[in-house]
Amino acid sequence: MRVYDIIKKKRDGYPLTSEEINYIVKNYTDGKIPDYQISALLMAIYFNKMNKRETIDLTRAMINSGDRVDLSQIKGIKVDKHSTGGVGDTTTIVLGPLIAACGVPFVKMSGRGLGHTGGTLDKLESISGFRTELTIEEIVNISNKINITISSQTANITPADKKLYSLRDVTATVENISLIASSIMSKKLAIGSDAIILDVKVGSGAFMKNIDEAIKLAEEMVSIGLGYGRETVALVTNMEEPLGKAVGNALEVREAIEILRGDKYSDLYELSLQLGSRLLVLAKRVENEKEGRLVLEKVIESNKAFDKLVELVQYQGGDIRQIENPELLPKARYIIEVVSDKEGYVKSLDAEEVGRCALMLGAGRDTMDSAIDYSAGIVLNKKIDDRVEIGEPLAYIHSNDKDKGEKVRGILKNLYQIGDKNKEPKKLIYGLITKEGIKLY
Amino acid sequence: MRVYDIIKKKRDGYPLTSEEINYIVKNYTDGKIPDYQISALLMAIYFNKMNKRETIDLTRAMINSGDRVDLSQIKGIKVDKHSTGGVGDTTTIVLGPLIAACGVPFVKMSGRGLGHTGGTLDKLESISGFRTELTIEEIVNISNKINITISSQTANITPADKKLYSLRDVTATVENISLIASSIMSKKLAIGSDAIILDVKVGSGAFMKNIDEAIKLAEEMVSIGLGYGRETVALVTNMEEPLGKAVGNALEVREAIEILRGDKYSDLYELSLQLGSRLLVLAKRVENEKEGRLVLEKVIESNKAFDKLVELVQYQGGDIRQIENPELLPKARYIIEVVSDKEGYVKSLDAEEVGRCALMLGAGRDTMDSAIDYSAGIVLNKKIDDRVEIGEPLAYIHSNDKDKGEKVRGILKNLYQIGDKNKEPKKLIYGLITKEGIKLY
Repeated sequence: MRVYDIIKKKRDGYPLTSEEINYIVKNYTDGKIPDYQISALLMAIYFNKMNKRETIDLTRAMINSGDRVDLSQIKGIKVDKHSTGGVGDTTTIVLGPLIAACGVPFVKMSGRGLGHTGGTLDKLESISGFRTELTIEEIVNISNKINITISSQTANITPADKKLYSLRDVTATVENISLIASSIMSKKLAIGSDAIILDVKVGSGAFMKNIDEAIKLAEEMVSIGLGYGRETVALVTNMEEPLGKAVGNALEVREAIEILRGDKYSDLYELSLQLGSRLLVLAKRVENEKEGRLVLEKVIESNKAFDKLVELVQYQGGDIRQIENPELLPKARYIIEVVSDKEGYVKSLDAEEVGRCALMLGAGRDTMDSAIDYSAGIVLNKKIDDRVEIGEPLAYIHSNDKDKGEKVRGILKNLYQIGDKNKEPKKLIYGLITKEGIKLY
Repeated sequence: MRVYDIIKKKRDGYPLTSEEINYIVKNYTDGKIPDYQISALLMAIYFNKMNKRETIDLTRAMINSGDRVDLSQIKGIKVDKHSTGGVGDTTTIVLGPLIAACGVPFVKMSGRGLGHTGGTLDKLESISGFRTELTIEEIVNISNKINITISSQTANITPADKKLYSLRDVTATVENISLIASSIMSKKLAIGSDAIILDVKVGSGAFMKNIDEAIKLAEEMVSIGLGYGRETVALVTNMEEPLGKAVGNALEVREAIEILRGDKYSDLYELSLQLGSRLLVLAKRVENEKEGRLVLEKVIESNKAFDKLVELVQYQGGDIRQIENPELLPKARYIIEVVSDKEGYVKSLDAEEVGRCALMLGAGRDTMDSAIDYSAGIVLNKKIDDRVEIGEPLAYIHSNDKDKGEKVRGILKNLYQIGDKNKEPKKLIYGLITKEGIKLY
């Protein structure tokens, strides 16, 4: 087998065989094929695409390139959730305790934030002492005791994907549905959960800017999951504006606490219930989503969901006093109000730009080495479609640096586009993809 | 300027600016851009192509990456000729002396053979003592004295092209008209001749297998030459079977001698006159091709053309006795006849495969380091459309290794497809491309 012939075959529009895909992934991971041949192949894939079989083969080859996390010793139908990344996306910290409180093991390995999007691990680490690096033994033991762990990926999972992604990142070959889908799914499938729900974000703050493209991506990922023998569903959801009210690590933990304590009035609450009710169906805990929703509402009302978060924090070494009394979470020195000088309705609020504001305040990282200010961030008082009067607060900036806070105030104010009411009210969910097909909302 | 943005721009179908092309070529040559980014860009160019302006910019940037050969001290309108490569293509050794004998300076820098195609320098080096490595001073002095030099490219011409070509060769990004045309033309244009004739070969023994593609390539090259301010024309010519009768270094020199001495009965003679008459027009030596042809015929009849070859060999250090008496050229120990066991007409004779036979005999190189057996090769007695009787010789194999010769005999015999007369007689010339446009034959 010659790499040249494989590049030429894809360049000329032919599908690659399973053997060819395995050969490429294995030998590239082992350093036996140079980057320059793979980047040419990736560009050919960008243009000529991969079919579903090729995409599943690529995913499998990437999984086989590294370790797999065996969760078979955890009792029950283990569920996992993945978001393609957004701004203010605190869903995991709400959803995990909710699901676990229903008796379904929620075993999540998560990532860190980069650029304008936050990461669950960073958010949890704003709780003093919270340990995200767990051994597989710890994951198994804790999950068997309390039905939940949220940890980092310590194992050598999908090294092929890491290498391929780094190369795609500098050769303008990221934006291909098959390559994106196989990259995400290989990481998910290397971890032995039984059912997966995917939250594919679309909009200004998401990687996918276009709904049709996001639906295609979701479809591709579900097809890979099913092709690999895992129960998989996907929701395509709105990331035009930040999700929920808080953007920033401790601020988002606080928001999650409020929701688990009963605050129902946000899109973050609604999305958590939408994802959660479907996960309960996948885990065979309930018959249908409606029933799932009732069960979820009950574990909030009964305080079981909040207690589960406390338990999670306790078992992973965090300071539970900060959960019981969120005032003890890291707090910024300055809270700066952003006041509206217009009246009308919020027409748009670019999520990526809000994410960049939070980044400027120190809430995120520019590069993987940057330090994070856990207390910094933004709390939105007004979101798209909300009525605003002159003098009303639009948002609150939490900053330890007054100058930066003032600078962000100016930017954030301009991000709020205020005017006539939008003709169409915003949607939270655009589509649902299951093995039965696509349902658009 | 970021390489990533340039790759993405081309990937998305936009033309690159002159500045972007210069940036890429300069920094890649200087080792400041890694191969893996350039191979991705090349694949994007493969798919989205380059327009004429981009192609001229790329050519100019490659010329500027290295030295230029200044021939301004050579008097007269200097002409150059380039063939895209074929089997048995002895044209330069016939054409050069013909043109020079008409008083027009023919200053050619040539390459070596690789694979199934031969190189003019190798052919000339079958003459004892012939020096192909001349300094610029020598080229100027000799050309001013005798109107001809044929030498190797010793200067550091178009290093960018060398680097890009090596990368294209292993990443399946060779086959793009703009990249092929700019690669060839940058090398031609870096040498300061005034007029260029291009012989674009098409057929089984050529790089281009398809006439339409060959015409596109010829058009692109002429457009680059004209865009760079040089008189440029191209002929698209047949390479389905080898050109002329001889394939192999000393054998081809011998064939050139025969033609310059008056042997008119071959396609090699005809092609030399077709190219030559147009070069004489470009050099303003004659008014039109018809007149050019008459002048060329005259310099053959008067022996001036042959004398010019002798002069060339003499001035470049070769043994002129081998020209005056070709029996003194290197000769193989064995001459093996390939006899027909069929009767009919030669329907086809795959030029590339004949080239490979010559390669097996030692007439060419597999890699740039292989040694060449100057005496080895093949002389074709029958070519396409020729009538053949049972027992008639089809070809003669010249070999110093009897076993190899016998092996090639079996292969060569099978290469001769003998049967009914082809419906269409073969054509030597398919098209002519000038600044006035394309003329198809």
